[in-house]
Amino acid sequence: MSVVGPLGFEASGVAAGLKTSTYKDMALVLNTGPSAVAAAVFTKNRFFAAPVAWSREVVSDGRARGVVINSGGANACTGSAGFADCVAEAEHCQVVLSQVKGIQVGVKDILVLSTGIIGERLPMPKILSGISDAVVHLGRSNEDGTAAAHAIMTTDNVPKEVLVERNGWSVGGMAKGAGMLAPALATMLVILTTDACVDADTARAALHRSTELTFDRLDSDGCMSTNDTVVLLASGSSGVTPSYEEFQEAVATACAELASKLISDAEGSTHDIEIQVRHATSIDAALAVARAVSRSNLVKTAIFGNDPNWGRILAAVGTVPYEVAPFESNNVSVTINGVRICQRGAIGEPRDRVNLLHNREVQIVIDLGAGDCEATLLTNDLSHDYVQENSYYTT
Amino acid sequence: MSVVGPLGFEASGVAAGLKTSTYKDMALVLNTGPSAVAAAVFTKNRFFAAPVAWSREVVSDGRARGVVINSGGANACTGSAGFADCVAEAEHCQVVLSQVKGIQVGVKDILVLSTGIIGERLPMPKILSGISDAVVHLGRSNEDGTAAAHAIMTTDNVPKEVLVERNGWSVGGMAKGAGMLAPALATMLVILTTDACVDADTARAALHRSTELTFDRLDSDGCMSTNDTVVLLASGSSGVTPSYEEFQEAVATACAELASKLISDAEGSTHDIEIQVRHATSIDAALAVARAVSRSNLVKTAIFGNDPNWGRILAAVGTVPYEVAPFESNNVSVTINGVRICQRGAIGEPRDRVNLLHNREVQIVIDLGAGDCEATLLTNDLSHDYVQENSYYTT
Repeated sequence: MSVVGPLGFEASGVAAGLKTSTYKDMALVLNTGPSAVAAAVFTKNRFFAAPVAWSREVVSDGRARGVVINSGGANACTGSAGFADCVAEAEHCQVVLSQVKGIQVGVKDILVLSTGIIGERLPMPKILSGISDAVVHLGRSNEDGTAAAHAIMTTDNVPKEVLVERNGWSVGGMAKGAGMLAPALATMLVILTTDACVDADTARAALHRSTELTFDRLDSDGCMSTNDTVVLLASGSSGVTPSYEEFQEAVATACAELASKLISDAEGSTHDIEIQVRHATSIDAALAVARAVSRSNLVKTAIFGNDPNWGRILAAVGTVPYEVAPFESNNVSVTINGVRICQRGAIGEPRDRVNLLHNREVQIVIDLGAGDCEATLLTNDLSHDYVQENSYYTT
Repeated sequence: MSVVGPLGFEASGVAAGLKTSTYKDMALVLNTGPSAVAAAVFTKNRFFAAPVAWSREVVSDGRARGVVINSGGANACTGSAGFADCVAEAEHCQVVLSQVKGIQVGVKDILVLSTGIIGERLPMPKILSGISDAVVHLGRSNEDGTAAAHAIMTTDNVPKEVLVERNGWSVGGMAKGAGMLAPALATMLVILTTDACVDADTARAALHRSTELTFDRLDSDGCMSTNDTVVLLASGSSGVTPSYEEFQEAVATACAELASKLISDAEGSTHDIEIQVRHATSIDAALAVARAVSRSNLVKTAIFGNDPNWGRILAAVGTVPYEVAPFESNNVSVTINGVRICQRGAIGEPRDRVNLLHNREVQIVIDLGAGDCEATLLTNDLSHDYVQENSYYTT
């Protein structure tokens, strides 16, 4: 149960021939109403792709009816021609929805999302016929939702879906992403749907807060993509109006579950690493420290080698400037999977008490001994498979 | 010809048994005068090692006579006991120099440098007997200099030496480092010697400027170490007093040559990558862009796969905030090994015109089209061997 879990949504996933394989590569999600509220969060990358430019424009009025998504091509760094392709996609979707389904939507109600190779134009004939096919196949069944989740995959090993059920309403979602996960939502596409009755301001606020707490705290390889987008569509079909707190909590729960699925499927990873920074002077300080550790290739290769190498962790922590994260180096302790291996900047319990070999989950707790704030970041190790996967295919 | 190239220096390299192998692991460099000018630059890592704390104290008065260096143990994150070990090393060196060689130096004239595993105490009996042995073996021959260059190696494949000869004076040097190369001199030890007559202020200014232009523009894997140190010792033996400009140029030339040797020997690398950023609004902006690219694992694995993946390069460039590097994304062009593969933010010449397979050297030129400043950074690709080397040994 995913994007079609909440009432008022249809979805489809089809094979348009964008990939060399016969896998599904185009998806469509349609909000059948009654409401057409939409909110979105986009990559902060300055080389944002054409579909990001288009979708940002579409969602600026707080409404949208449909989302067209393709894998197999990012339509990034393609100039004004690439932007024109996005407009053509939306226009074509509008026409086919009207002709085939008798559904009238504005061109500016169609979001377009793309993922795949950067720096190549999309094969538009295939894309347009894929959109036609996707409209024809729209449906409300679990299979339709899962087909859509399959169609947006690139190097993902598994489709990623979620359904968070509340009293009379729910939040559903799907996500793709298995590398280039970084702050500001790198190479990640997420479509969330809800049948709750919410207005555009509520949707926008809840989505921003939820991504801040979840996707912004994923950092797989520190690389931020050109196409990342998280979309929330609200149909109002349930007739239930939750409070802002209830709604935000449910959206955040859906995001957290998808975030966890993204990190577990990160390219080539053998360990999921949770980095908790405690007793920081601020949440930003805690996040800066966690991010420095999550970006250290030496830490990540050590964990791949099942080595609880706290020296490399401290060396990464020590690169954060004092202005960003005030702490004294001889107050910092590090605990790995429950073993306090570094005590106040010096040697703690013996490193051989930490057994990483038999655990996929690795928890690193860094206690700065400086304040009352904490934050947690998710990352993964750096393996041969990461190098293999990213040196032998082109994105 | 290295640290003993200039007049007024002796060196040695001995095996103290710090490593499991019988390789040399301790070195000594002695300035026999008449002058004892010294300057040093240290890691900016907040978890700087005990020898960094000690050596910073020693060099603060602008003079030093000797440098004791060990590989096989970093003496980092070892608390006050680790600092006491440094003092013991200097004291022992003072005593042995007096007893064996009849040379009188102060304890506070002995710099101590360490490299190797973080978070373990040094085996002091071996260290002290190694120092005795190093004093006994001090000599002025090329072999003595090369023995010292061998003794400071860790994962280096080759010793790294340099001699820059000028009119009647010279600058010699040796370096170790093959990973954790990053801004602020990460896991890198460099000892430079000169027989020029310079005062402490000249030595300090020339060394700072030279490291800023060379070692600070190396970024192998973005990891900054706890022990990095660059030392310059001046004996005044030549009797020649060069101008500041002449002296600084010679020191920078020596540093650049060692920097180039360090990057060529970076752990597991198959490509040396030069990242030139042109037409930036400032040198800092150019460096920020170059550093973002040099830290992108996706760029580095692509180059390892001989893929001129300019999309990943732009995605990395696009993570730099506008405040740091003002430019317009549709003004940015990328040239790889002479082929302008990306023209003004969009598709340029065909990517198959770039042949990376048969070149170890890769030159990436990023033209921001925004100003008149430029800077160059050296890095390397990310390979299976990097993962292998860093997951199967402990530092």
